[in-house]
Amino acid sequence: YTRAEVAQHRTPKERVWVTYGTDVFDVTEFVEMHPGGPDKILLAAGGALEPFWALYAVHSQPHVLELLRDYKVGELSPEDAAPPPGDTADPFAGDPPRHPALRVNSLKPFNAEPPPELLTQSFLTPNELFFTRNHLPVPAVEPGSYRLRVEGPGGRALSLSLSELRQRFPKHEVTATLQCAGNRRSEMSRVRPVKGLAWDIGAISTARWGGARLRDVLLAAGVRDSTGDGEWHVCFEGLDADASGTPYGASIPLKRALSAEAEVLLAYEMNGRELPRDHGFPVRVVVPGVVGARSVKWLRSVAVSPSESPSHWQQNDYKGFCPSVDWDSVDFGAAPAIQELPVQSAITEPRPGAAVPAGELTVKGYAWSGGGREVVRVDVSLDGGRTWREAELGPRPERGRGWAWALWELRAPVPAGARLELVCKAVDRSYNVQPDTVGPIWNLRGVLSNAWHRVPVTVTK
Amino acid sequence: YTRAEVAQHRTPKERVWVTYGTDVFDVTEFVEMHPGGPDKILLAAGGALEPFWALYAVHSQPHVLELLRDYKVGELSPEDAAPPPGDTADPFAGDPPRHPALRVNSLKPFNAEPPPELLTQSFLTPNELFFTRNHLPVPAVEPGSYRLRVEGPGGRALSLSLSELRQRFPKHEVTATLQCAGNRRSEMSRVRPVKGLAWDIGAISTARWGGARLRDVLLAAGVRDSTGDGEWHVCFEGLDADASGTPYGASIPLKRALSAEAEVLLAYEMNGRELPRDHGFPVRVVVPGVVGARSVKWLRSVAVSPSESPSHWQQNDYKGFCPSVDWDSVDFGAAPAIQELPVQSAITEPRPGAAVPAGELTVKGYAWSGGGREVVRVDVSLDGGRTWREAELGPRPERGRGWAWALWELRAPVPAGARLELVCKAVDRSYNVQPDTVGPIWNLRGVLSNAWHRVPVTVTK
Repeated sequence: YTRAEVAQHRTPKERVWVTYGTDVFDVTEFVEMHPGGPDKILLAAGGALEPFWALYAVHSQPHVLELLRDYKVGELSPEDAAPPPGDTADPFAGDPPRHPALRVNSLKPFNAEPPPELLTQSFLTPNELFFTRNHLPVPAVEPGSYRLRVEGPGGRALSLSLSELRQRFPKHEVTATLQCAGNRRSEMSRVRPVKGLAWDIGAISTARWGGARLRDVLLAAGVRDSTGDGEWHVCFEGLDADASGTPYGASIPLKRALSAEAEVLLAYEMNGRELPRDHGFPVRVVVPGVVGARSVKWLRSVAVSPSESPSHWQQNDYKGFCPSVDWDSVDFGAAPAIQELPVQSAITEPRPGAAVPAGELTVKGYAWSGGGREVVRVDVSLDGGRTWREAELGPRPERGRGWAWALWELRAPVPAGARLELVCKAVDRSYNVQPDTVGPIWNLRGVLSNAWHRVPVTVTK
Repeated sequence: YTRAEVAQHRTPKERVWVTYGTDVFDVTEFVEMHPGGPDKILLAAGGALEPFWALYAVHSQPHVLELLRDYKVGELSPEDAAPPPGDTADPFAGDPPRHPALRVNSLKPFNAEPPPELLTQSFLTPNELFFTRNHLPVPAVEPGSYRLRVEGPGGRALSLSLSELRQRFPKHEVTATLQCAGNRRSEMSRVRPVKGLAWDIGAISTARWGGARLRDVLLAAGVRDSTGDGEWHVCFEGLDADASGTPYGASIPLKRALSAEAEVLLAYEMNGRELPRDHGFPVRVVVPGVVGARSVKWLRSVAVSPSESPSHWQQNDYKGFCPSVDWDSVDFGAAPAIQELPVQSAITEPRPGAAVPAGELTVKGYAWSGGGREVVRVDVSLDGGRTWREAELGPRPERGRGWAWALWELRAPVPAGARLELVCKAVDRSYNVQPDTVGPIWNLRGVLSNAWHRVPVTVTK
């Protein structure tokens, strides 16, 4: 069989085919018996099992392969057993391979989110499923020749190799959630069209990051707190650049960069492994509690400056506006660049439009807020917001350091035949809450979409 | 005339009488000619002019008194010319005199707010009009014998006189807004009854505070940052106490108390004058960006502790809950004590139900957020939230230090005969917004009432 033929078998109706190595299997009869649930095995339908088994270690037991053998229906044709050759004229030809479960919003540059069912499977998002927000082609970095330039005030500068960054500065670890400013944009564009990638609820993920504290590196470069004379900034540039050579760039206030409590990292590890190429190999910034756009990947330079980054993405993007502002009237200079994000939550299970069985319904989701303002409560409604009950918050490994999301769950009895509108809303440590509706926070770039998340479902009879 | 007789003349229909010294005036004919607007002069109707003239210096010119002389209708009877004697059996008998413009929500203890028309007359609220939230009788403190006890770890303690507090520590000044957790509770109790004082929109005010930094005093008492071993707290007790001798108390995290940036004060000045008795004379805490309940007045003691204040007001009050929690199911241990408050705004002019003239309407109000998260935008709707325009933010003396409110204004043409629902909502530096409606944030104590503020008005023909 060719891979294209296998890919035509994605549903029980078409038969469910998967590959493992060069073998092809028809697992249609096994779908309902899958211990992890039929929805999970269907994520691999029409493609290879390996990327999914790599995420969930339970599959590495010998009896799993034995079980699979019973379903073998053939083998891949030899020309399809090897990956296709790259196209060297395409600037994106050097992009890394991606996990097939990711939902792709744009291929070039690559932007993709994990499916909601997998997003809240684990507190730490597996690296392969972590949402990917690339503005440009992924740079190919040779770690041996990598240098990070750090410019302090008065012309003083450091040039650090990867091993110097690892050895000169103590390794610091932070569990932090990153969220794209455009997460849940697709809900906003249903009000009125907006410009931007149509993210669903998955442009948010959590990892344990390891690296040097930005504070330590800046101090080594001779930077001192200059807040006496106005607000200073730390500007970052990536190795990713457009055809004209202009790199991705962003900045954060110097005060945050120098704060020990803010825990800003120059990270070289993600969940205990080196950074994947899509997430900034070999070094990226991680700014906990702040919009993902400031956590610059493939970091090339760090510079202290009296003004914010001149980058397009700092000056003319990633800002919020009044709903009445349109592309004719917008003045990007009039709004502050998004740094800390507002409180957010979403329902990951069940999915909108799902038919759920009568009896006990389990509603699952995530909740997070910017600025280290830990989520203290999640309210869930089954009736569109008329009545509410409190969800149970899952364990959070680092209480008191509020950089990571809370996963939550609510179990409630639901009667057969009912039509429910599930809603969630979170409350953070400052008792900020989410707005009821998305219309009044609509903005032309579709950012900051944090209204109550609403999921209509029907209960089967 | 007696004061009671004068008090019966509060509206043009009853004739508008006022007193100045022992003279009585009928100013009915002058009301419409009042340069500050008829609504302002009517605040003094039926009582003395002096407290209002003291606030607005324009009245101290000689021609004002000459003008007034034309309206004289008589004098106060001699027994009413002096204030009435106090009742010594009443624990509140020693409370100070208050400004007659304050709207009283409870007399004993005294809780009152400025009328909305005066709230946004000036960026700094005059001391006489600053909202007053007393939990207990106002203590009578002899400044010469006042001592502040500061307990550090390991039994070390300081006892500071008022002059030591002023002289040993540099004076630091902060312009900060204080807001009661119950501000706008009356809107919440219209959804379902709640327990608490029926604050309108005026339980918020702004002053320039002067005093010693709490940080400096704690360091002098030998306190060092102990965040390594869990979260520590700084507990405050007031000199105000109930019949059993239990004082008012509250606490804040030690991290905030020691932070130079958080600018927590032991204040002895309010708008350049010594603290008024109602606001904590001689020394109060001012915690910028945090609910007013932690800014303990008539400060008696400061103590560092591994746990929060055991006070009722820290443990079993000033916390937020899910709307479904009632007095049978509430578990005060389950919610965090309110510290930083969420983003807030309200319309101060026009008032709900007002009839406004056709032509250009001016809408005024305030906006503020906790945690130093400066307000970056206020959106105003004239049609109940369907369409929005951006209000103009007034000047803020200390940009970058986000402790104070923003006053704002919107001018818009309104057609004769229209019924408008004015709405405002604010956005803070972290792009947090206010919820659309109050029902879903309802809680049994009626705190954290920060939904959009809605003001219905009609336009006259």
